[in-house]
Amino acid sequence: MGKTTRKLEVSSPVPADIDIANSVEPLHISDIAQDLNLGPKHYDLYGKYKAKVLLSVLDEIGGGQDGYYVVVGGITPTPLGEGKSTTTVGLCQALGAYLDKKVITCLRQPSQGPTFGIKGGAAGGGYSQVIPMDEFNLHLTGDIHAITASNNLLAAAIDTRIFHESSQSDSALFNRLCPPNKEGNRRFSDVMLRRLKKLGIEKMNPDELTSEEVTKFVRLDIDPSSITWKRVMDVNDRFLRKITVGQGPDEKGMVRETGFDISVASEIMAVLALTTSLADMRERLSKMVIGNSKAGDPITADDLGIGGALTVLMKDAINPTLMQTLEGTPVLVHAGPFANIAHGNSSIVADKIALKLVGPGGFVVTEAGFGSDIGTEKFMNIKCRYSGLKPQCAIIVATVRALKMHGGGPEVVAGKALDHAYVSENIALVEAGCVNLAKHISNTKAYGVNVVVAVNAFSTDTEAELNAVRKASMAAGAFDAVICTHHAHGGKGAVDLGVAVQKACESVSQALRFLYPLDIGIKDKIEAIAKSYGASGVEYSEQAEKQIEVYGKQGFSNLPICMAKTQYSFSHDPKQKGAPSGFVLPIRDVRASIGAGFIYPLVGTMSTMPGLPTRPCFYEIDLDTSTGRVIGLS
Amino acid sequence: MGKTTRKLEVSSPVPADIDIANSVEPLHISDIAQDLNLGPKHYDLYGKYKAKVLLSVLDEIGGGQDGYYVVVGGITPTPLGEGKSTTTVGLCQALGAYLDKKVITCLRQPSQGPTFGIKGGAAGGGYSQVIPMDEFNLHLTGDIHAITASNNLLAAAIDTRIFHESSQSDSALFNRLCPPNKEGNRRFSDVMLRRLKKLGIEKMNPDELTSEEVTKFVRLDIDPSSITWKRVMDVNDRFLRKITVGQGPDEKGMVRETGFDISVASEIMAVLALTTSLADMRERLSKMVIGNSKAGDPITADDLGIGGALTVLMKDAINPTLMQTLEGTPVLVHAGPFANIAHGNSSIVADKIALKLVGPGGFVVTEAGFGSDIGTEKFMNIKCRYSGLKPQCAIIVATVRALKMHGGGPEVVAGKALDHAYVSENIALVEAGCVNLAKHISNTKAYGVNVVVAVNAFSTDTEAELNAVRKASMAAGAFDAVICTHHAHGGKGAVDLGVAVQKACESVSQALRFLYPLDIGIKDKIEAIAKSYGASGVEYSEQAEKQIEVYGKQGFSNLPICMAKTQYSFSHDPKQKGAPSGFVLPIRDVRASIGAGFIYPLVGTMSTMPGLPTRPCFYEIDLDTSTGRVIGLS
Repeated sequence: MGKTTRKLEVSSPVPADIDIANSVEPLHISDIAQDLNLGPKHYDLYGKYKAKVLLSVLDEIGGGQDGYYVVVGGITPTPLGEGKSTTTVGLCQALGAYLDKKVITCLRQPSQGPTFGIKGGAAGGGYSQVIPMDEFNLHLTGDIHAITASNNLLAAAIDTRIFHESSQSDSALFNRLCPPNKEGNRRFSDVMLRRLKKLGIEKMNPDELTSEEVTKFVRLDIDPSSITWKRVMDVNDRFLRKITVGQGPDEKGMVRETGFDISVASEIMAVLALTTSLADMRERLSKMVIGNSKAGDPITADDLGIGGALTVLMKDAINPTLMQTLEGTPVLVHAGPFANIAHGNSSIVADKIALKLVGPGGFVVTEAGFGSDIGTEKFMNIKCRYSGLKPQCAIIVATVRALKMHGGGPEVVAGKALDHAYVSENIALVEAGCVNLAKHISNTKAYGVNVVVAVNAFSTDTEAELNAVRKASMAAGAFDAVICTHHAHGGKGAVDLGVAVQKACESVSQALRFLYPLDIGIKDKIEAIAKSYGASGVEYSEQAEKQIEVYGKQGFSNLPICMAKTQYSFSHDPKQKGAPSGFVLPIRDVRASIGAGFIYPLVGTMSTMPGLPTRPCFYEIDLDTSTGRVIGLS
Repeated sequence: MGKTTRKLEVSSPVPADIDIANSVEPLHISDIAQDLNLGPKHYDLYGKYKAKVLLSVLDEIGGGQDGYYVVVGGITPTPLGEGKSTTTVGLCQALGAYLDKKVITCLRQPSQGPTFGIKGGAAGGGYSQVIPMDEFNLHLTGDIHAITASNNLLAAAIDTRIFHESSQSDSALFNRLCPPNKEGNRRFSDVMLRRLKKLGIEKMNPDELTSEEVTKFVRLDIDPSSITWKRVMDVNDRFLRKITVGQGPDEKGMVRETGFDISVASEIMAVLALTTSLADMRERLSKMVIGNSKAGDPITADDLGIGGALTVLMKDAINPTLMQTLEGTPVLVHAGPFANIAHGNSSIVADKIALKLVGPGGFVVTEAGFGSDIGTEKFMNIKCRYSGLKPQCAIIVATVRALKMHGGGPEVVAGKALDHAYVSENIALVEAGCVNLAKHISNTKAYGVNVVVAVNAFSTDTEAELNAVRKASMAAGAFDAVICTHHAHGGKGAVDLGVAVQKACESVSQALRFLYPLDIGIKDKIEAIAKSYGASGVEYSEQAEKQIEVYGKQGFSNLPICMAKTQYSFSHDPKQKGAPSGFVLPIRDVRASIGAGFIYPLVGTMSTMPGLPTRPCFYEIDLDTSTGRVIGLS
């Protein structure tokens, strides 16, 4: 490593993120690629600073040995975030630019919606960022746009199919689906043969179907009230949360209540993150379930004839995007599923490619969304289960601020000034809050990895407070706990963390242990996870009971579980900070992403479409039309 | 020219489009660029076969001389299309690969929606195509996705603003829009200063606003019933034509009826096609009008604080995409506004760059949507008016099939077998239909260009039929009329057309004459266009009269007119074939695209969101996951 890396000159106080990002001239991405032994045939350029690394690279280097695999999770966060992405980037800058290791950072692609809303960008912060940060936050290489396009093509196909079935006889439908050619011959398209196979009809010639078989073939008979597939948009548009469609005069009164989610909540995003190859993606997309027939059978994308088209729309999106950090280390950005209703982790294919590219002794650092209850748990039990990969080290990012909150500090609200408690020394509050950190450590250790706590230090933290966190971490069984200043100092501020991570990786001895096996019942799996939260039991709504039964009958009970739970508490109640125990976890409903490959119980209500505040970020964003440079992005 | 060009080996009968497209290995796009004297600093690669040519190229070569400028229009088409794109591509293959001219084809980016619906792709056909055709038809370099994203961000901002204004006092709104910083100071963002300027408030310090000025500043007071801005999606989703939004419990009953258009119908697409620079695009986006205040004042994107963010989302989309034809000639693909409610022409910036790149003696061939009444008229009176460019030659593509229809042949319906009349000789029907062609010729000649008729020959056409078209063309004043077989033979089949076009360009003597000046009233302009259709007069609905008055008061009456009329007749009635006259053109409503820069009267009802048929194209589309190749795209 090292030909492309450089060390930053830092200023104090730390300038605005965009100013730091703009102060560094990025290298041409082909230089970053070359440093990873990737030549022009291994990637497609998207401008000068982004390249899609082709999945076919794995065919060439797939036989090599993997590097170390490090996952970055966190404690239960405040709404301000605890700098998990920043720590991920800072650690990699340390490993690459200071410790001379081969390293690749694997990050999620952020949703564009929040960039213009409250949150701003997601490229890290301070002197630990991915650049160019405007390209990272906007469009990137079009993957989320491809997801939006394919998700919505499927949505249009659903309503249109119901519409056409409602007005046509079986024979008219059959005539349109399998029209005779000039010679009067009919044929099934490949995707129709998939449906026939599912129906148990083993005929290749449409003319041989009995009239009963014709009916079975042409009528999906979708129950409109069962449709779970929603449209998506990568915009914070709260007025689309609940809508009525089909009110035009030509749609003949076939109105239906539905809604839009933000694009990253699409099951297709979850598929992208969990797939392992083009052929696997084709299969996952084809078996996505959009609802049931009136008889209760699941209706898939392939029943609608659309699995192939969805794959075509997603064929470039399967290739991860190569970018770089401020200190010239490589980054793979790929997929960004919702961390609540989906698994919140970046893609398997990016991690796989990265592990081969860094090779033995190198490091792949990948981020898992939110606290370890949400992100790391799903990383282990869903992502690693599908990938077969095993991490050696898990990092837990903690801040004095969040620990004070867990210790009983006043509420932290985004957009409001921090209470005095958070900017002046209060060791007792920090110590009291460490129960939260301790539970994240023990839960994470249970997977058989070494846990390193990264304390992301703020300028207002005191040495005594930081040491209290270190001490509590070690007491809770951490392999090490390190104070980091990568926000203010770049990689230099995370060198100690890098050294600790290296040791943790080198000394791991255990095998990966999942929290639950797949072959137990849905409820048993849910209860195993609930227990890890500290719950004394689980309570199911009638609707949840019904869905568990349905999925059991439909043959889906062997899937892993993806809990849709608030990230602000181990429990279902965001107000319960620290390490609550003895609570009963309520399951309001149970849903499934069959294509992606998981069942997701809803613990409370998750918003899947954010809104815009009165003064969205976009008020500050503009283009300097003389230089073409983006200004005001934060 | 010529280093990259090659001549095709052709087969007979002509294979399927995708098979021809896949049979040719495209050149790396950097080779195509190099042949145009473009180096790596002039473009951004998007994979191996697409590159965005940076608008900044014009700063370097903008001082050079232009090549010849040729526009391709058509006669009034059948629903099957008359091969206008195919002819545009075929002509360029002839000029480049056979006549050794510098040539660039300028095409519109097709909407992705119809690719999966009835229509299939739009990359030309047979041996005259743009390749890779799957990349041309899907995603391309993300411009339409950028339009969708920016259009919908603006839409979300509208509803959210109404929502926030409804629940907050003036001072609360002001406090949120201009929050005090830590030191208690407030500031206006740049886009707020634009609004203040519009309001006539010349203060830079928020604290100096009077309470009246605060009210004027914070309250857009949008009249929900006046909102013309719709959401968009690049999918054929008929169930979104008319919808109700805001039905979620958190939106507090603020429901509103609205709808989605297909993305290419967005005003932002029209802006992209008509803009001339980044600074010009910033201004056009900022002055787009989304509706009125309750007091009747137009509300713009900048009033919502979003013009800068929209520009940022569109900053890469302004760069045209370089591709290639089957015979290795360069193509610039850029913008694709609806030809009905917008101007239906590709971008000004692509044409400008192309004219400089080919230089004197070279050719730029650009396509205008539909017949000359729709496409060429708008090309001349809107696009050339804004660009200042002047074409030397206009091509009118005609087919024996369409002329037979105009001569009284039976109805032509997409998806149904053609009537016998269209596949067997019937000279009388052809001759009778040439009244349509003659009117397109005389209308187009009136602009001061030489008109060349390109007869796109089908295998079922007879020599006598083709000659009848030639004869009628010359009688109607065409500079030349040429039988072409580029679909079957590639550039070789359009060599005669190329020679005729070259002569037409070299011998033009007249200046460009617009159909109407800008400084007459809206009605006078509408009537000038209606007269060119053959109308004896114009009839305005009450709503149309009202809108004309409103736009007059708002100061928009100096804009050019973009008629939203059926493409299937010179008149408003698609059934009136040939060259109808004496009809009264009904104007149902009048709307405006203030940012793009035109007023559009609605002549009848235009569908701005197509639907999917019972058996959409997607049934055949799939990915060969072993090769990564797209199959079944037509």
